Amino acid sequence: MLADRIEKANREAVERIFAGDPVLLDVRPAADVIAGLEDRVVLHAGPPIAWEAMCGPLRGAIAGAAVLEGWAKDLAEAERLAGSGALAFHPNHHFDAVGPMTGITTRTMPVMVFENRAFGNRAYITVNEGLGKVMRFGGNDEEVLARLRWIASDLGPAMGQAIRSLGGIPLKPIVAKGLAMGDEMHQRNVACTGLTVRAIAPALARTMGEAGKLATILEFVSGNDQFFLNIAMGMAKALMDPVRGIEGCSIVTAMSRNGTDFGVRVSATGDEWFTAPVEMPQGLYFPGFDEVDANPDIGDSTIVETVGLGGFAMAAAPAVAGFVGAGGAAEAIAHTRAMYEITAARNPAWTLPALEFAGTPTGIDIRKVVETGVAPTINTGIAHREAGVGQVGAGIVRAPLACFVGALESFAATVGAT
Amino acid sequence: MLADRIEKANREAVERIFAGDPVLLDVRPAADVIAGLEDRVVLHAGPPIAWEAMCGPLRGAIAGAAVLEGWAKDLAEAERLAGSGALAFHPNHHFDAVGPMTGITTRTMPVMVFENRAFGNRAYITVNEGLGKVMRFGGNDEEVLARLRWIASDLGPAMGQAIRSLGGIPLKPIVAKGLAMGDEMHQRNVACTGLTVRAIAPALARTMGEAGKLATILEFVSGNDQFFLNIAMGMAKALMDPVRGIEGCSIVTAMSRNGTDFGVRVSATGDEWFTAPVEMPQGLYFPGFDEVDANPDIGDSTIVETVGLGGFAMAAAPAVAGFVGAGGAAEAIAHTRAMYEITAARNPAWTLPALEFAGTPTGIDIRKVVETGVAPTINTGIAHREAGVGQVGAGIVRAPLACFVGALESFAATVGAT
Repeated sequence: MLADRIEKANREAVERIFAGDPVLLDVRPAADVIAGLEDRVVLHAGPPIAWEAMCGPLRGAIAGAAVLEGWAKDLAEAERLAGSGALAFHPNHHFDAVGPMTGITTRTMPVMVFENRAFGNRAYITVNEGLGKVMRFGGNDEEVLARLRWIASDLGPAMGQAIRSLGGIPLKPIVAKGLAMGDEMHQRNVACTGLTVRAIAPALARTMGEAGKLATILEFVSGNDQFFLNIAMGMAKALMDPVRGIEGCSIVTAMSRNGTDFGVRVSATGDEWFTAPVEMPQGLYFPGFDEVDANPDIGDSTIVETVGLGGFAMAAAPAVAGFVGAGGAAEAIAHTRAMYEITAARNPAWTLPALEFAGTPTGIDIRKVVETGVAPTINTGIAHREAGVGQVGAGIVRAPLACFVGALESFAATVGAT
Repeated sequence: MLADRIEKANREAVERIFAGDPVLLDVRPAADVIAGLEDRVVLHAGPPIAWEAMCGPLRGAIAGAAVLEGWAKDLAEAERLAGSGALAFHPNHHFDAVGPMTGITTRTMPVMVFENRAFGNRAYITVNEGLGKVMRFGGNDEEVLARLRWIASDLGPAMGQAIRSLGGIPLKPIVAKGLAMGDEMHQRNVACTGLTVRAIAPALARTMGEAGKLATILEFVSGNDQFFLNIAMGMAKALMDPVRGIEGCSIVTAMSRNGTDFGVRVSATGDEWFTAPVEMPQGLYFPGFDEVDANPDIGDSTIVETVGLGGFAMAAAPAVAGFVGAGGAAEAIAHTRAMYEITAARNPAWTLPALEFAGTPTGIDIRKVVETGVAPTINTGIAHREAGVGQVGAGIVRAPLACFVGALESFAATVGAT
């Protein structure tokens, strides 16, 4: 029976997710650890996209990265260079990586190294830059680049050294605690950021020589409630990659957006992206901004929803429902309940206190999405549509159903259904 | 009308609580800041009590403190000294102080200094020693005393210096965040401890010379999920003291236990304690221990319930309901709902996400307690009944109704009711 075969494959998928043991292992310059990240290569969020089709913040971030890497002397030259075909653009996902919002990853940027110790695979992501005008939201001026240079010269090496001295930091227990502390690990990471500071601050103190540098690093990390977001994303990527390529499996292995297209990958169909135009987030805007300023949905951060966090775990985080304009505690619970309809299992290690410690909805089944018409709920930041501005709000967005319809058609062909 | 007069007085009381602005200001040796804390004076939790009537852990902690202070060369000599009348015992509450469990405060112990900036009053409490075999649970051996000496020589001075460099740490915002992160600030302080580490770690790094000492301090604080408990207690004491002595006010200003008696103070009746025998907590025990090992209820920590946290804010902390053996999320919400029946107001600054951000139940009205028969719910640690052992579990306990009946009789006489 085809249905039995798919059920078995999907069970295998969720068992791999539940068996995963993701550990934050190190922080290293991207070029040292990401195979194939050559000079003049830019990794970006979402499925593949050409320069001409890119949105404002993505182009802006690329221009900033080109100046940062010394490929161009200023932003104008960087834009010309990027448009000339002299730079190569590839999705992070094609290099075992993910990145928030624009998701730019280039050679000199430090990346956190994650290992899923149950399967041996690794994943990579840059260190969170903070809030506001930052490269992931399209920021690219000297203030943005100076911060990235400091991350490369000071924060990254110190973090790497501290984390190595600890032998790595297991992440599933931190996320389990965070869910009991109001985080959903997409738009709210205040608890997990605190738990991370508690884990690494003593090691930073032990391994760093200069107290002044240490204080600056602790201030930077402690001052950014979203610091853990990138850790959650790298962890989710490390957890989901072993699910790729299971024959007959209809579970989503990645959801991602480049600001123009939303892309979905499914286990049985391997590396193929099923895309549709991204939607506009519905949310709340920072003072001075509104819908007309907003860029459409962007970023690899939907990897956290893919593993059952973010919008899927909204019941853990009633405070985030308010932040993204989605109501209160009752609405937060309703979002999570809806995600049970489109997922294969409940995660026994990650539980939701408000639902009497029910497990997070895990393993998006494209058949259930298409059958029910319930699109995955995603909590997201909102970038300004123009390069150079930064974050303007936060909201909720739905994954476009068309991606799942396309994926299901291809899946059906793959498994020999009619 | 008497009822109107009481209502007006009670409104004044809750307005004072809501107007309070408690700040953690400093850490200093107790003798330097607590007026009247002379040599051979021991401050303890709860209402006044004589040596002969004290329970095992309280006697044990006093013996340990006598050795720590150099009043006795060993525990046996210390017990004899304590029983001989050579030491003076007073409640912390009589010295603007509070203390968890046995609550011992003596001259050389560093205390955190709190100022309620809206009213100018100060409050004091020792630094949390960690979990297990510690003096607050009756521990008194060399391991316990060595830790206290390190707190006096290293942790206290470093914390004081860091906090002074920050100009103090306002506490209401930390508690507000903690309530959205699953803490109720009595048996669960994991979020607020993290927020505190984030606040002071950079300042510790800036103000401390020795990286090795800094690492040890960060490990100690980061390794203790209950580190914030003492901060919450000092804050609550600083918030409640301005409510004392309001004519016609039937709001409780302190609840406290010495392991033998439970004591209640009420605004209109000033410094009088209304006591009744303490009850046994109902809870869960650590492996190897059960009810027969448990000491009756003890500690000044019920000051957090007095200000609307702890058992009153259980809806914020479904995970603590499980820890203290009180069920799950639904039971946690039910506990908070019951406390609305006996309180005067809802705190607009401290809200409960699971109750759609309703304010915490604030201002225990002794009239309502006696009328409804609903006794205040208290989340508590459980000490071993013998000296020297330490914590054996955690649970829930009810304030004895008899205290409130006695208080109401005295209150009625004070306000001229029949």
